[in-house]
Amino acid sequence: MAVRVAVVGAAGAVGTQVIRLLEDRGFPVAELRLMATKRSAGSKVTFKGEEIEIEEASLEGLAGSQVVFFAVGTEVSRELAPLVARQGAVVIDKSNAFRMDPEVPLAVPEVNPEDIKRHKGIIASPNCSTIQLVVALNPIRQAAGLERVIVSTYQAVSGTGIDAIRELDMQVRQYSGGQQLTREVYPHQIAFNCLPHIDSFDANGYTLEEMKLVRESRRIFGDENLAITATAVRVPVFTGHSEAVVVQTKKKLTAQEARRLLAGAPGVVVQDEPEHNVYPLPLNAAGRDEVFVGRVREDLALENGLSMWVVADNLRKGAATNAVQIAEFLVKEGL
Amino acid sequence: MAVRVAVVGAAGAVGTQVIRLLEDRGFPVAELRLMATKRSAGSKVTFKGEEIEIEEASLEGLAGSQVVFFAVGTEVSRELAPLVARQGAVVIDKSNAFRMDPEVPLAVPEVNPEDIKRHKGIIASPNCSTIQLVVALNPIRQAAGLERVIVSTYQAVSGTGIDAIRELDMQVRQYSGGQQLTREVYPHQIAFNCLPHIDSFDANGYTLEEMKLVRESRRIFGDENLAITATAVRVPVFTGHSEAVVVQTKKKLTAQEARRLLAGAPGVVVQDEPEHNVYPLPLNAAGRDEVFVGRVREDLALENGLSMWVVADNLRKGAATNAVQIAEFLVKEGL
Repeated sequence: MAVRVAVVGAAGAVGTQVIRLLEDRGFPVAELRLMATKRSAGSKVTFKGEEIEIEEASLEGLAGSQVVFFAVGTEVSRELAPLVARQGAVVIDKSNAFRMDPEVPLAVPEVNPEDIKRHKGIIASPNCSTIQLVVALNPIRQAAGLERVIVSTYQAVSGTGIDAIRELDMQVRQYSGGQQLTREVYPHQIAFNCLPHIDSFDANGYTLEEMKLVRESRRIFGDENLAITATAVRVPVFTGHSEAVVVQTKKKLTAQEARRLLAGAPGVVVQDEPEHNVYPLPLNAAGRDEVFVGRVREDLALENGLSMWVVADNLRKGAATNAVQIAEFLVKEGL
Repeated sequence: MAVRVAVVGAAGAVGTQVIRLLEDRGFPVAELRLMATKRSAGSKVTFKGEEIEIEEASLEGLAGSQVVFFAVGTEVSRELAPLVARQGAVVIDKSNAFRMDPEVPLAVPEVNPEDIKRHKGIIASPNCSTIQLVVALNPIRQAAGLERVIVSTYQAVSGTGIDAIRELDMQVRQYSGGQQLTREVYPHQIAFNCLPHIDSFDANGYTLEEMKLVRESRRIFGDENLAITATAVRVPVFTGHSEAVVVQTKKKLTAQEARRLLAGAPGVVVQDEPEHNVYPLPLNAAGRDEVFVGRVREDLALENGLSMWVVADNLRKGAATNAVQIAEFLVKEGL
């Protein structure tokens, strides 16, 4: 079964990865249409040795597409995705537009694939930092139940988009050249700094990024009362989000048991030989589709507690890979 | 009362700061002797407009000194400090050599100044990441008691020393020049990366850096059973350690109450206007002597929980400033 596919936001950081993954993972593409804003229209992308021109996004251009990846901002998704779904396509949306919509499944194929089947034309892919967290927590949850989760993130600039990648690149070049560092994207210099500020602030003092981690994790696990808290921090890393995770389980798990469960879980790679300097690193996770877990140890402050270090490529598993995996599941299930 | 002072390790990252602080804070110096390894001996340092030559460290050279700052590695401190103390000096040691020695006070002047008085010739200054944590926790502990503390750190390379500052500098220059990145100090590239590995690994899976945070905090607070856990991470920042701290108190505190307590605490500056992009940043803390606290909010996962973001200059308050403050307390108390 080959599928007529479209990517909206084909020139962006995530859209570019979706196209690469469709090719790399051998997704059964019958036709590929690439769409972006007027600014990027006309540029060409190579897919399976063939050049495809990016068109300006339009409803008409998406007529006949069966699976449409939306890798654009929340506003555009909110407006356009329902219309595209009404044309008969299944939309896989990476924005925040539909993630908390009870009519729209919020899916991570390793964790809640069954939810995908309930779709009514739109499937939401969670935020990057949520995806890697739930993939790592799921085997622990299944074996021992979750009582409490405390997360601190170390998030790469590529999560903000191509402009932010350019800003970090520019700032380190300015530094190396002895020039004044300038900025446009972030409210403060990102090179050689840590910003405890991702997305806007909520009235409760949390950022939306932190609340996404909280609300999306609860929704994906189907546990509205899960005690979970987060601090989300931007660090001067190009690609790869890291998370320091402390989890309290209902039943006791040893570090050894947790490591064994993680090693057997889909989409997880355990890298945990600290005596040989082996642990997950954002630099090593870049370009990979799995979630890497290491530094697994019994926690010192919580009964039935485990601490671990969870890393993934935020553009791949944190966005593009998860979306393509949702599409693969749809194909397997006959859309 | 003017004091005969010596700095051992005067050419290092922390020693250099101690000399600067003695001048900046108007410490009553009668005489200043500077010591280092043979390699650095002979180089000159300007102190109050006068050039002082660094000598090769020796017991004889320290005879007659009243306060001796040790800003050297653990091995050298362990060997030399007791001999210097036996000569009649008070040693203020920044290494790990004596921190858990029950005969040696482990002191943060804002938190446990009374412990300084019990010294027998050596006073230990805690590890950088501990100092800023206990300064921020202390007003909360005094008002509401500590039940549980969970810390994730974002630590600057200057904590490793001058070689590590050079390594990050070199790697970003290599990056900017399109060259291959090389490394010597860290087991992995530090530029554009996060290393969940500071100091060596313990059998329980924690690093010594993490266990220092745990053990030193318990000792400073005089609470051997405090439930506290840590993940210590090196980030590509030159100066300024950041910490995401979740604390569960015995009595409920609102975020507003916590902010008020922090604002009134010695050595703490509250920076907490997220709506104006005001929160602590390592880049802004660099060169400052205070501990900066912001992002104070009621925690979502723990009853009576508070989350906050704590930043300080690891070479100043995290090392040199704390040592000089201990010396100031000694002078105030007549040594």
